Amino acid sequence: MQDQKDTICAISTAQGMGAIAVIRLSGAEAISICEKVFVPAKQGKLLSKQKANTIHFGSITDGEKDIDEVLVSIFKAPHSFTGEEIVEIACHGAPYIQQQVLQLLTRNGARLATAGEFTQRAFLNGKMDLSQAEAVADLIASKSEAARRVALQQMRGGFSNELINLRTQLLNFISLIELELDFSEEDVEFANRNELTKLVTDIQTLLKKLTNSFSLGNAIKNGIPVAIVGHTNAGKSTLLNTLLQEERAIVSDIHGTTRDVIEDTINIEGIGFRFIDTAGIRATKDEIENLGIERTYDKISKATIVLLLLDVNDPDEKIHDAISDIKRRLEEHQQLIVVINKTDLSDDASVSNRFSIDSFKELAETDAIVPISAKKQKNIDALTNALLKTVNVSAIDNDEVIVTNARHYEALQNSLAAINRVFGGLESGLSGDFLAQDIREVLHYLGEITGHINTDEVLGNIFKNFCIGK
Amino acid sequence: MQDQKDTICAISTAQGMGAIAVIRLSGAEAISICEKVFVPAKQGKLLSKQKANTIHFGSITDGEKDIDEVLVSIFKAPHSFTGEEIVEIACHGAPYIQQQVLQLLTRNGARLATAGEFTQRAFLNGKMDLSQAEAVADLIASKSEAARRVALQQMRGGFSNELINLRTQLLNFISLIELELDFSEEDVEFANRNELTKLVTDIQTLLKKLTNSFSLGNAIKNGIPVAIVGHTNAGKSTLLNTLLQEERAIVSDIHGTTRDVIEDTINIEGIGFRFIDTAGIRATKDEIENLGIERTYDKISKATIVLLLLDVNDPDEKIHDAISDIKRRLEEHQQLIVVINKTDLSDDASVSNRFSIDSFKELAETDAIVPISAKKQKNIDALTNALLKTVNVSAIDNDEVIVTNARHYEALQNSLAAINRVFGGLESGLSGDFLAQDIREVLHYLGEITGHINTDEVLGNIFKNFCIGK
Repeated sequence: MQDQKDTICAISTAQGMGAIAVIRLSGAEAISICEKVFVPAKQGKLLSKQKANTIHFGSITDGEKDIDEVLVSIFKAPHSFTGEEIVEIACHGAPYIQQQVLQLLTRNGARLATAGEFTQRAFLNGKMDLSQAEAVADLIASKSEAARRVALQQMRGGFSNELINLRTQLLNFISLIELELDFSEEDVEFANRNELTKLVTDIQTLLKKLTNSFSLGNAIKNGIPVAIVGHTNAGKSTLLNTLLQEERAIVSDIHGTTRDVIEDTINIEGIGFRFIDTAGIRATKDEIENLGIERTYDKISKATIVLLLLDVNDPDEKIHDAISDIKRRLEEHQQLIVVINKTDLSDDASVSNRFSIDSFKELAETDAIVPISAKKQKNIDALTNALLKTVNVSAIDNDEVIVTNARHYEALQNSLAAINRVFGGLESGLSGDFLAQDIREVLHYLGEITGHINTDEVLGNIFKNFCIGK
Repeated sequence: MQDQKDTICAISTAQGMGAIAVIRLSGAEAISICEKVFVPAKQGKLLSKQKANTIHFGSITDGEKDIDEVLVSIFKAPHSFTGEEIVEIACHGAPYIQQQVLQLLTRNGARLATAGEFTQRAFLNGKMDLSQAEAVADLIASKSEAARRVALQQMRGGFSNELINLRTQLLNFISLIELELDFSEEDVEFANRNELTKLVTDIQTLLKKLTNSFSLGNAIKNGIPVAIVGHTNAGKSTLLNTLLQEERAIVSDIHGTTRDVIEDTINIEGIGFRFIDTAGIRATKDEIENLGIERTYDKISKATIVLLLLDVNDPDEKIHDAISDIKRRLEEHQQLIVVINKTDLSDDASVSNRFSIDSFKELAETDAIVPISAKKQKNIDALTNALLKTVNVSAIDNDEVIVTNARHYEALQNSLAAINRVFGGLESGLSGDFLAQDIREVLHYLGEITGHINTDEVLGNIFKNFCIGK
């Protein structure tokens, strides 16, 4: 791990040219280093004598040479993001100038920050726990309403509070059990076994709920993987464009802001759907047979939703075969949506009659069948609704705690396994010392999430994925 | 032109994901609009009751929904960049969040700023003149030390001051001449013609110096165009890579900052050299004959420096022919540097002997001949020195006023033409009213540069090239 006592600096705004850029310094020397290179426009107090949370106009100078006119913001320990002295220099946004200022700061005693080092200091200085720190990176990476919302809630400690509560209760019990061990010859029970069983059951329920939320959380964070299956002529790219337009209409593209374009990821009401390219499917007469290509099935198996795109002009038999073929190959966790495209050429009544629940009984039981025209943007709402129905939107809307982080998921699974052992131990009347061992293990894994238990390696792995400057 | 009274907003930091992003509001309602969507972390005074140049932590909220945790900075009219109330919101740097905050502000009464509108307001509110405003954009676009330095000097009014001084003196004279016109029947001379002639001569000298500085200024701003002529085997790409390495070594690439990569533009001691691709030159036996290709010569004609790259292994005659061929085709403003590459295979003494001044007399008179090895990085210093010698570096080092803007250049040329007419008029004893007319024209053109004279169209043309958010 990096030295905690020196002063670090980094560019905190996005790379490239902007009107302004912000360069951040954090550490005991932040203000004094800035003072060496900053000349205020109005002569007056030294920067170090200025009040916290104030802004000062002046020049960044390298000896005789002026580099830029800037605004300098001052934050004082412990009331800052990192808990240390922080200076933010807002300079003109030329990458060349940003680099000059940064180099000047390093020549005057600051060190370039490593990825996530500001947030790591915030964690190490007790400004936030580890799951909150991780949420900072998630918030910055959030690309949809749901991802933003879940990350903000986690950053504010929603997740941590649930865990801290559990830990506190478990710690109470373990101290009682350990008290028993001190009096082991007297065969007393300070820890009420019924109350402990009740608590353990509650914890089991909560941990199950949390681990179960991960598939939703992961989908929110990374986008829900949707494989579109069907030959090219079925209108895949038209469909993707239509969905993208739908989204654009909602987002209402603002002049001067650029969407972070990710190929084939489409936001529908705040949920990201990540469309997986299944290029291996060829448009031969037996296109469904051709699905046998290994690579294509590999990709399909990674999808949560399989969207089978068919042409309304195909005969019933072909459509039936295609559906039953793909259903045979679906795994349990996958949901199928059958999309019948090109309905613009048929009349509505005959289409809705032909694809009624009766005619596709075996399909209607579990999955959706949606006739659309991608070209004419017909019935696209029904398709987006079918996609949204696969997601537990209410959990997001109610700000329930949703686990989005694979590291947390693993720790929760380990906690759950340990608490299950505690439960088994209580049932079979296991002695206090064995119970205490398993409870300690639960505490350990829960502590890993919040960072009460951590190692340099764990911290290194977490913060290396942050952007520099945060 | 846009309405000047409403409150504008824009993202002021670079596009894309960063640790933080800054969204700026300017206008009479800036603080009250922010107040509608900002909830301070500590309850206390309203934002509008806070002092200027202070920073406040809290949340941006859309009704019940929290968007992000932010820092809000307050600047008050007239002590701000635009001269208006300004609020800067520093949010987490997800493009999605930036867009959400921006949309929220527009829903609460702010309007999205057009390109350069903040700076335009600064100009219209008298915070800076037009040439200073233009320098803001140049500073943001600066990609080399020289460009940054010249832009900063111009932004601080170095150029404006020279012009304002001229204008004041001319205005004095014109009022005296116009006084004469009032007393025209009495044949008096309030304006001393000798003093006026002296002033006009001084102005002529200064305007000539300024217009002459434009070729350097333009080169500083856009990079000095260098055409490399020679067939591919002569080692063009190795040479470019070697020069690029040289630059990198100087710039010392900082981890986490990305150079704004412009293909084939290389900074040498703060001056940008823009290498022009002359792909039309083929590697046949008669490669120099092949230079006749029209397109290649078109490109060469745009260069200030022509760098003829030859192979040391070619016979003397071929080298002589190549040099005299290219010299025949050079225009007056172009400088030739002959680079003899691949000297790593020959011994130094024989190379320096072979390419001594004596053996290339006709060349040595005006131009440079530099034997190098691009591959072994041998004698590259001599080449970069030859390139730098083509630039008037001392003008930059002495912070002389250098004209970098084509609009200023045109206005200066017009001023010069008008002042020459004044001079001619004085020599031929032209009457006061005709003199006054020409002096008014000089004042007009000088006023165009600083913006004392402006039209909506001129302003529109200038500010549309700014980035949004500045």
